[in-house]
Amino acid sequence: MDRDAILLTPGPLTTTLRTKLAMLRDWGSWDADFNELTADVRRQLLAIAHAQDSHVVVPLQGSGTFSVEAAVATVVPRDGHLLVLDNGAYCKRLARLATLMGRRTTIVARAEDEPVSADELDARLRDDASITHIGFIHCETGTGVLNPLQAVSDVCARHGKGLIVDAMSSFGALPIDARELQFDALVAASGKCLEGVPGMGFVFIRKAVLAGCEGRSHSLAMDLFDQHQYMEKTGQWRFTPPTHVVAALAEAIRQFDEAGGQPARLARYSDNCRCLLDGMAALGLEPFLKPEWQAPIIVTFHAPAHPDYDFKAFYLAAKQRGFILYPGKLTQLETFRVGCIGAIGRNEMTQAVNAVADALREMGMAAH
Amino acid sequence: MDRDAILLTPGPLTTTLRTKLAMLRDWGSWDADFNELTADVRRQLLAIAHAQDSHVVVPLQGSGTFSVEAAVATVVPRDGHLLVLDNGAYCKRLARLATLMGRRTTIVARAEDEPVSADELDARLRDDASITHIGFIHCETGTGVLNPLQAVSDVCARHGKGLIVDAMSSFGALPIDARELQFDALVAASGKCLEGVPGMGFVFIRKAVLAGCEGRSHSLAMDLFDQHQYMEKTGQWRFTPPTHVVAALAEAIRQFDEAGGQPARLARYSDNCRCLLDGMAALGLEPFLKPEWQAPIIVTFHAPAHPDYDFKAFYLAAKQRGFILYPGKLTQLETFRVGCIGAIGRNEMTQAVNAVADALREMGMAAH
Repeated sequence: MDRDAILLTPGPLTTTLRTKLAMLRDWGSWDADFNELTADVRRQLLAIAHAQDSHVVVPLQGSGTFSVEAAVATVVPRDGHLLVLDNGAYCKRLARLATLMGRRTTIVARAEDEPVSADELDARLRDDASITHIGFIHCETGTGVLNPLQAVSDVCARHGKGLIVDAMSSFGALPIDARELQFDALVAASGKCLEGVPGMGFVFIRKAVLAGCEGRSHSLAMDLFDQHQYMEKTGQWRFTPPTHVVAALAEAIRQFDEAGGQPARLARYSDNCRCLLDGMAALGLEPFLKPEWQAPIIVTFHAPAHPDYDFKAFYLAAKQRGFILYPGKLTQLETFRVGCIGAIGRNEMTQAVNAVADALREMGMAAH
Repeated sequence: MDRDAILLTPGPLTTTLRTKLAMLRDWGSWDADFNELTADVRRQLLAIAHAQDSHVVVPLQGSGTFSVEAAVATVVPRDGHLLVLDNGAYCKRLARLATLMGRRTTIVARAEDEPVSADELDARLRDDASITHIGFIHCETGTGVLNPLQAVSDVCARHGKGLIVDAMSSFGALPIDARELQFDALVAASGKCLEGVPGMGFVFIRKAVLAGCEGRSHSLAMDLFDQHQYMEKTGQWRFTPPTHVVAALAEAIRQFDEAGGQPARLARYSDNCRCLLDGMAALGLEPFLKPEWQAPIIVTFHAPAHPDYDFKAFYLAAKQRGFILYPGKLTQLETFRVGCIGAIGRNEMTQAVNAVADALREMGMAAH
């Protein structure tokens, strides 16, 4: 049966047919119709973040990581000092790309099973006046842990430091209100909680810091100052845009609005997450994180405690039943991950739990 | 009437419905099915360039310019010296991105209405032993001029210099045979003559230089050594791939093969170009380039010699008739460009010429 599997992954994820159908058209990248599409997406993104007054938003070609790298390259001066609050794989990636591009980078490491600490940040900022910027992951997709955005933002604001937020897997689902927060840059992408297809990211940049960003980037393609200036002047992207991806995102945002925006999305994902946790608990599968630190985005589960367990076999057994799981990203523990995001609801989550139950039974690993 | 306009642009361009329909599926980026899709695209690309024995091919997220920047960052050592043969806007862009990332860059400028010269390159390489790499644009899309790839490759090989070819708008249409050429890197993208949708590029890297490329890139996202190594090890892209764009490219390449590959594509585009040039000549519209230097990819025309001519009005009049033209990129001369590439043939080119004739008549600028 050639039927799409349900993607229980943190993006690319399952999108609606309506979103995909928006890609059945070719757009001229210079044309006014496409410029209007881009402008519309940018307007909608600013509205979702309540950032119309405080920020601009700059779309960028490539995966979300390209936008994270571009945000650091554009916002952190060449002689700046970036402190990265690290509790997982994406935090480490942020630190690595900043180091590679030559920005002085310091890592504050934390265990992967707990949130980073705003108090610890406060202490570090008091100790080291050379720190100019803080790199922060809102939802660390490596484990699924929710980090304290508001508290970290408050500390940064109090110390007058620039905050760079990787909100890749949270934007659109978790509340992010630029009127309550103070960030210099916040990064997300098309193929995550807005439920578009992958291929572009976008970066909110605080208007107050934008002018100072000119000439900072060592990279032509990733210079968000240039990208923004050119877009403001011409309405166009500087270099060939992924036109079909932009069209899909515009259509995905339309559905996002129609369904009730961020609160409705959070409610659906929270219900997905609850349904998943309850169902897996009944199968004897335990989550890696404490409930209070679990974002309703992606859940890390301990692997079944069975000597013959093998993720690849488990993955294939679930896939045969129509569900794509995600591998764990922890080095010390055998885990797997299940996404709660995408154009899926309680039906799909229930079916997924049932498929996992059947897979474990087939593998002779059923707990009950 | 909501009917797609024909894009007479150098990419994004008009694609087939079959190519677009390939995007109506969501792929898990970690899944074996998607890995096989990526592997298949890479195999096909190597075959098109006859590069299976000599090169690897590394796909990269983003527009073609991202891949050009990544090629320079990965292949040119930090203390290297890049000589750019410049006869147009894309040559200048290549020089600019190399300079920005800190590579020593020298430009050999040439008039925009003639090809760069292999003899001049030969002389420069004899004069300056510090030059390590040559940056070369195969078809300079700014004007449409064809540059002498074989002759430049021969000079580079004789001097033992690394050649980086931007074959963005030529790959798949003009002959490029890695058995006859010697290049360290050759760059193209999904949304050009292979007639996929935009959103990814790919870089052929010579196997003999690959090992030396480790650790050169200042950019994490653009490090093609890392991208290649990770892909070889896991079958996956390092960061989220534009899954739908990859699927469209795979489908586009299938059609490319079925239609007869590069020779057939060149024949169709050459016929498109001839049809366009003949038709426009009959309207009194003259090409900017001499015929022997015109690549059958995109044609720059002098604007109608009428005091009231205005590109925007002309563009809109053509668009109303269903055809998207492209602006000129010359600063000194009033020109416009018309692409010959995409999923279009003699019918569409004839209709386009008729539409231009009607537009000029409406504007009171008909030559005859």
